[in-house]
Amino acid sequence: MSTEDLGLPMAVPAPGLPARVRIHEVGPRDGLQNEKATVPTEVKAEFIRRLADAGLTTIEATSFVHPKWVPQLADAEALFPLVADLPVALPVLVPNERGLERALSLSADRVAVFASATESFAKANLNRTVDEALAIFDPVVRRAKDAGVHVRGYLSMCFGDPWEGPVPVAQVVRVCRALLDMGCDELSLGDTIGVATPGHVRQLLSELDAAGVPTGAVGVHFHDTYGQALANTLAALEHGVTTVDASAGGLGGCPYAKSATGNLATEDLVWMLRGLGIDTGVDLARLVATSEWMAGQLGRPSPSRTLRALSHKEQ
Amino acid sequence: MSTEDLGLPMAVPAPGLPARVRIHEVGPRDGLQNEKATVPTEVKAEFIRRLADAGLTTIEATSFVHPKWVPQLADAEALFPLVADLPVALPVLVPNERGLERALSLSADRVAVFASATESFAKANLNRTVDEALAIFDPVVRRAKDAGVHVRGYLSMCFGDPWEGPVPVAQVVRVCRALLDMGCDELSLGDTIGVATPGHVRQLLSELDAAGVPTGAVGVHFHDTYGQALANTLAALEHGVTTVDASAGGLGGCPYAKSATGNLATEDLVWMLRGLGIDTGVDLARLVATSEWMAGQLGRPSPSRTLRALSHKEQ
Repeated sequence: MSTEDLGLPMAVPAPGLPARVRIHEVGPRDGLQNEKATVPTEVKAEFIRRLADAGLTTIEATSFVHPKWVPQLADAEALFPLVADLPVALPVLVPNERGLERALSLSADRVAVFASATESFAKANLNRTVDEALAIFDPVVRRAKDAGVHVRGYLSMCFGDPWEGPVPVAQVVRVCRALLDMGCDELSLGDTIGVATPGHVRQLLSELDAAGVPTGAVGVHFHDTYGQALANTLAALEHGVTTVDASAGGLGGCPYAKSATGNLATEDLVWMLRGLGIDTGVDLARLVATSEWMAGQLGRPSPSRTLRALSHKEQ
Repeated sequence: MSTEDLGLPMAVPAPGLPARVRIHEVGPRDGLQNEKATVPTEVKAEFIRRLADAGLTTIEATSFVHPKWVPQLADAEALFPLVADLPVALPVLVPNERGLERALSLSADRVAVFASATESFAKANLNRTVDEALAIFDPVVRRAKDAGVHVRGYLSMCFGDPWEGPVPVAQVVRVCRALLDMGCDELSLGDTIGVATPGHVRQLLSELDAAGVPTGAVGVHFHDTYGQALANTLAALEHGVTTVDASAGGLGGCPYAKSATGNLATEDLVWMLRGLGIDTGVDLARLVATSEWMAGQLGRPSPSRTLRALSHKEQ
């Protein structure tokens, strides 16, 4: 008998935490973009369908970055129409006006831009300075808003940077402010190399409060490189954050990080939220089955501890 | 350059957390007891020496359980004298008066008894009822105290049980009270199958407060089966707990749990505490080197995410 069948984890709400959390599922985009294997378009579509069937309501579907940079997602035009009718939010990544045009031509109604909190990563990932990248996003966000499209602003390296080390909180707050001021509807604070710890998370969220950034507009995006992602999530929930990014089965990771572990696994997150009595709408057994199936497609085991513990197969 | 060399994680204290945490290192006992490989006595001694050299001040060394039950630790008499002179606390497990005699004859000055919060696990692990087991411990604790020996009381299955499911908090509190009343100096609350979540941890600690159990006498012992151990530790720290059990490299686990992941890895814990600016006295680089060496002795990779991220070898 599995722990789930036994009614575990026990749901014991903790005072001061939100009643509901929206999981922003990034597996099909952030996950698959960082996997070595290139996945067939129909498998990607089936992955997204199964995630929606498991109860995830926001599923980042793909990226309209130039295929030269992200060959794994070069099939965005073929994939998006296969899933566009699902009754869930399907944001897509766009790097510039050309990417936005491609997304709009497929009637995408949610897009995301991606900025960097550090000059080193802006240079490495975008080949620009932080401010040059922001200048490129400005017309993208404006055009998206004019078209009635919801815009998420990703911010990488919010806690530490592999070249620069610790990232000053004020630097992160400045770019957050800039993204909101240009019209982004929400932000996603990325711990791209997984070095955040709970006090650092609280400090950044407090400084964002002080800068007038509404907590309701802030999502968190933790990587589990050092096993800290759930503790950091707990700190964010305690601050009132209600949007948490996660990747089914813990797919993906940062190509600059040495470890194989990347994004917080959605299963580990759902397990904690269930235990806290926080509603997510996700059916954990279906999610586990989906990630097991995807692990089979990729031919590699999942790093998710909850998935391994609940798995029916040898991971 | 490693993240550590870059000064990561940033130390950002969080309000309300303790300034210092004592890590109760259980790798040589709880870890090795649950590993398939039997480790040579001299390797165990070297492991303990290296852990002490890495700054761990409490290292559970071995167990005086009958060798028939725990053949991995059948060399307790040979091992203990090899490490007894180290300037650290070296508690040993004792199941009954015979075990205590063996420990006292070697001048051990710290022992631990192990009780169960559930009848099913008491039956499976001790072949007794909960109260029969407590009755056996009573004279053990009394004799130990008479001999000036510090006594820790382990309590298994404090959050969930693989046969019974959720464990009522009142049941756990009752056994904690009984262990303290018979003279135990400290308790270790075990989440033997890893199903605790942070709200549940807070609830149990609050109920222990209400029952007059001093927080200073309570340690926490989380398993990382579902990836929850660090988030649970954070909840315990927020409650004022200052003793946390962990196993170097995440060695060991519960033989009844399906997953390969067992104890919270000391490296993952130290990383979080460093990030929170909480003093542990542990040199993380030396600890990582020790666990790498031990993984080599066991011929299997470590499940610790921090160890993998910081490791110089392919794990």
